[in-house]
Amino acid sequence: MTLTSRGASAPDPSVYDSRTMPGEFDFIDWIRSQSRADPRIIVPIGDDLAAMKWDANDLLLVGADQVLDGVHFDSAVHAPRDIGRKAMNRNLSDCAAMACLPAAAVATVALPKGTAIEYAKELFLGMSEAGEKFNCPIIGGDTSSWKGKLALSVSILGKTTIGPVRRNGARPGDHLHVTGPLGGSLLGRHMTFEPRISFAWMMMQMVRGPYRVADLNITAMIDLSDGLSRDIRHICAQSSVGAIIFSDKIPVHDDAVEMRRDGHSPLEHALHDGEDYELLLTMAGMPTEQAARPTTTGEASLNWIGTITAEPGIFLQHSDGRREPLEPKAWEHQF
Amino acid sequence: MTLTSRGASAPDPSVYDSRTMPGEFDFIDWIRSQSRADPRIIVPIGDDLAAMKWDANDLLLVGADQVLDGVHFDSAVHAPRDIGRKAMNRNLSDCAAMACLPAAAVATVALPKGTAIEYAKELFLGMSEAGEKFNCPIIGGDTSSWKGKLALSVSILGKTTIGPVRRNGARPGDHLHVTGPLGGSLLGRHMTFEPRISFAWMMMQMVRGPYRVADLNITAMIDLSDGLSRDIRHICAQSSVGAIIFSDKIPVHDDAVEMRRDGHSPLEHALHDGEDYELLLTMAGMPTEQAARPTTTGEASLNWIGTITAEPGIFLQHSDGRREPLEPKAWEHQF
Repeated sequence: MTLTSRGASAPDPSVYDSRTMPGEFDFIDWIRSQSRADPRIIVPIGDDLAAMKWDANDLLLVGADQVLDGVHFDSAVHAPRDIGRKAMNRNLSDCAAMACLPAAAVATVALPKGTAIEYAKELFLGMSEAGEKFNCPIIGGDTSSWKGKLALSVSILGKTTIGPVRRNGARPGDHLHVTGPLGGSLLGRHMTFEPRISFAWMMMQMVRGPYRVADLNITAMIDLSDGLSRDIRHICAQSSVGAIIFSDKIPVHDDAVEMRRDGHSPLEHALHDGEDYELLLTMAGMPTEQAARPTTTGEASLNWIGTITAEPGIFLQHSDGRREPLEPKAWEHQF
Repeated sequence: MTLTSRGASAPDPSVYDSRTMPGEFDFIDWIRSQSRADPRIIVPIGDDLAAMKWDANDLLLVGADQVLDGVHFDSAVHAPRDIGRKAMNRNLSDCAAMACLPAAAVATVALPKGTAIEYAKELFLGMSEAGEKFNCPIIGGDTSSWKGKLALSVSILGKTTIGPVRRNGARPGDHLHVTGPLGGSLLGRHMTFEPRISFAWMMMQMVRGPYRVADLNITAMIDLSDGLSRDIRHICAQSSVGAIIFSDKIPVHDDAVEMRRDGHSPLEHALHDGEDYELLLTMAGMPTEQAARPTTTGEASLNWIGTITAEPGIFLQHSDGRREPLEPKAWEHQF
């Protein structure tokens, strides 16, 4: 149901059942006051479901992702607006990975009992501001309080006419690229990353839009949430190919250098850390190998890091010619 | 992201980070094996987002709802398949309330650390079986394990060409109906209810479809999740009307009679208990007042319980003519 439903009309905040967040009446009114009129939205927040028109030419993409206290954020450390933003941005990053444009989102929030209304508002503002950057309003959802920890779940609707880019299209000879430097995101970037929607969309215009470059194509794409060494396996498995990654081509983030103190090398962090939220993509028809351009400016760039092979297996090749299997790893981390 | 993403490719179940559920590789493979080929689904489970075609004539409805341990179910008491079913059925009930047909769903599940894979499968089967009853496949989502309690969030896509029915269309003189007996759902029905999708759709065919009865219309509808005394306020507030409910017309469920032992009368349970998941609707043009038909068979029926008024305020009228304001209440309940 939409954000009105959980006891929204109880006039006395002391009268509510265990399913209802105290003061939610005010909260829902406030959320409604935040929504702008939008000609696409036929039924806005405030009914059992929201309703919108959908253009026949637009493929409808949909997915859901959650952020959980102690896993994706630490409520004792991170501000609620940042938590809300991350919940939305993880979903927007999935839109980028499919090269679609976000259209709308719905969200559920499980609030620990006693959560202040101002805190809940900050969560909502974080989500809605992140969505608004990409014209993606929150059009429905549900809030409940419980004797549990804070959990946010966002579902996103995306649309595309010239995509989507799937994980299964990589072919031998395709070049492997990543859109930015990797590693050490736990130092803070995992909360503040920018989903690569605009960059993905721009690339799609170049390869499939009216200004396309002949023979150039993006054949597979994924966003790096679990770490390069793990996420590349999705592309290789679903495309039935292998890959060689050149260790000296991987753009290593300054944060990965800083995290070296924990005993792992910057390269190891770049290979195995999660939550970079850069895009990993395979391109066909790229005329020249583009040099890696390590950068920490935060702007997306196209960094060539390897090659897709017909032979199965994922290998890391060093500048001295040594080649070793790239095993998936992820560090156990605690906030 | 879709259900592949959380460390799905880690070959060694002992190597996973805190964001990953152990053994999830098998779990995702298993979930994929459960999905049937569906010509509407262009990109199935297994990519960053799922993709589907959407007919230009179909309005797109979307919403999200969650079920939380200790609030909507008790994991110590209820079987995981029942928990999954409830998570989906609450969303399907929202579809019924808008008189739309469900088209697809996405789900996120937050699993307590150490949850057995078989338990997670049962949750999924509960959700997917409930959806399949109404041709509503699960096409994406996310699972994570955490040091928290079990939480499921489902988002649903619905479609309609002749709806939707909103909450804001009730007009003075409309008849108020409910689709089944109310009260005492905590004795078990809150886990096992049938969403009233078919009944709502059938009613829509009668009032707006090719076989429509002249002048008959459903003007507003909501599903009873928070209890009659509270949910009717949404219709009245959004339609800017009042209502009179006749206490002797309310169909009282046998469960409400059984729950009388807790000090509240069966009528009080019927008025204030939540989670009936029957539909409350207003009809215009009904030629005669239809008598209430209390039933416990579980089949939906049209039970006339009151009248919409121009004057604001919601009143309960007794058979002796006495009229009192109907205050929203909900009992604090504990599993």
